Amino acid sequence: MATSGFKKIPEEEEEAAAAASSSTVTSALLYNTTFSSQTHTHTLCATMSSAEGTDLGRVLCIITGASRGFGRTIAREMSRLVKPDSALLLVARSADDLRALQAELAESEAGRAGLKAQSVVADVGQMEGLENIVRASEENFSEEIDHMILINNAASLGDVSRYAKSFTDMGEVDSYLSLNVSSSLCLSARVLQAFPQRPCLRRTVVNVTSLCALQPFPSWVLYCTGKAAREMAFRVLAEEEPDVRVLNYSPGPLDTSMQVEARSRTADPTIRKSFSDMCAQGKLLTCEASCAKLMKLLLEDSYTSGAHIDVYDV
Amino acid sequence: MATSGFKKIPEEEEEAAAAASSSTVTSALLYNTTFSSQTHTHTLCATMSSAEGTDLGRVLCIITGASRGFGRTIAREMSRLVKPDSALLLVARSADDLRALQAELAESEAGRAGLKAQSVVADVGQMEGLENIVRASEENFSEEIDHMILINNAASLGDVSRYAKSFTDMGEVDSYLSLNVSSSLCLSARVLQAFPQRPCLRRTVVNVTSLCALQPFPSWVLYCTGKAAREMAFRVLAEEEPDVRVLNYSPGPLDTSMQVEARSRTADPTIRKSFSDMCAQGKLLTCEASCAKLMKLLLEDSYTSGAHIDVYDV
Repeated sequence: MATSGFKKIPEEEEEAAAAASSSTVTSALLYNTTFSSQTHTHTLCATMSSAEGTDLGRVLCIITGASRGFGRTIAREMSRLVKPDSALLLVARSADDLRALQAELAESEAGRAGLKAQSVVADVGQMEGLENIVRASEENFSEEIDHMILINNAASLGDVSRYAKSFTDMGEVDSYLSLNVSSSLCLSARVLQAFPQRPCLRRTVVNVTSLCALQPFPSWVLYCTGKAAREMAFRVLAEEEPDVRVLNYSPGPLDTSMQVEARSRTADPTIRKSFSDMCAQGKLLTCEASCAKLMKLLLEDSYTSGAHIDVYDV
Repeated sequence: MATSGFKKIPEEEEEAAAAASSSTVTSALLYNTTFSSQTHTHTLCATMSSAEGTDLGRVLCIITGASRGFGRTIAREMSRLVKPDSALLLVARSADDLRALQAELAESEAGRAGLKAQSVVADVGQMEGLENIVRASEENFSEEIDHMILINNAASLGDVSRYAKSFTDMGEVDSYLSLNVSSSLCLSARVLQAFPQRPCLRRTVVNVTSLCALQPFPSWVLYCTGKAAREMAFRVLAEEEPDVRVLNYSPGPLDTSMQVEARSRTADPTIRKSFSDMCAQGKLLTCEASCAKLMKLLLEDSYTSGAHIDVYDV
């Protein structure tokens, strides 16, 4: 089985692997020892919340794209599911929106009970931005933190008003991939380096993915390409780091400003009409409904690391 | 079914779609009319070779990464399967290697029968390089050409000596994605613009993909991410342009210099040993054997456009 990655695996296996979005065979083989010791470590940390499933522990949580939409909802929901003295790092480019959210969380029940909500005004598309996030994370870390959670949520839709054959400018594609792929890989790498494996520290990395990582959508070449790339990067990470819990969560069609953009700007008429119909028929999901599923996954903590998990499957 | 792209499709359908690497439902719906008219056009062009399957027609073929390995083999094999007065554009950065191949092809039976082999010294990672390729293509095009073939073969392995958590430098990841993803999307877009749909001109775009586009390999985060991204870009192209034949061809483990690099530099010991074992046991494929399968696919021309097709499945 050691060569399973190089020989073509049988069709059914490949389908199963594709469905689960994770080839666990190799990781099980490669990391058996590490995995066992990690389980043992968990057992020793009696205060850790993984077995309880009622809260996420004493958390340091970094959320990118936190100023609005799904990211903001994650911040709100997360604040209710962490132990007091947890810290939420809210990352976005817009200082004003972040400040409003920070104030809201400070006044909330969780805020009054000791939750620290910190704004980090940073552009995840720049190395300087990543460094700012890591510095703020280190400043907000303490020995009491038993769970580091990174939510790679920031993303852009890209220009959906044109078809693939119009993307002749490498600079435009480069820039999109940098913001949507490189940034999430490099931020995750930096954060994992800043908080290395150690006893009694769980580490969870979430990638907000999409059905577009699996299926091609006409006139969405940037978005589909970026999501496919990003999901693969996190699948590789899951294979390599068995002690890190990696979740590729697909939140479904959310009622956000990105959806408004999709409805109004998508070049492909059939896709555009489908979005309009979904909106008119009330079939878009609220951020709250989708986020509840994400929190359920994180609380239960029983997903296969690296797997693509769709909101409709939770 | 119009919303099939947005709702989660049933598990079996999704697996089938993943296996075929192409969601044909949408394209069938969207492009039914266009597709029919294209078929009709083909019927009118009696001299076109699609129905014969013995040659690829009077071809203008652009091959990137043509100076060595699989690209060079494609150039050689292609020269034997095209009608006289066809033109092969051999693209690479190395002028010396290209010149040797050009001379070899000029002296071959095909060369003596009228095949034109042209070197294009260009870096596909630069806009200027793409423009040079397009200019050379236009200069070598003539009214007699009935088949434009673009083979996106150029690619780099990336640094496989390190794990994902070490990729903290956005510049390094950006640069990899630019060379391996943006360049192939933008070159394909430029070439399709330069040679728009018209009666009696078939257009085929090949992406040399990999099992790594579907499966995560430890310590191969750049390669897997790039191949997943690139394959998705071409799947979107296939959905959007039903008159263009798009093939994601996975050539298998080839006995090339990239394999030497993989064997010697891969950080993950299990993966590295597997490559060494495959080499020692003579299980690597020759470029010729894999290229023969690619040519069979192109000649038969019956693959689903956008599908990922593995050498072992041909």
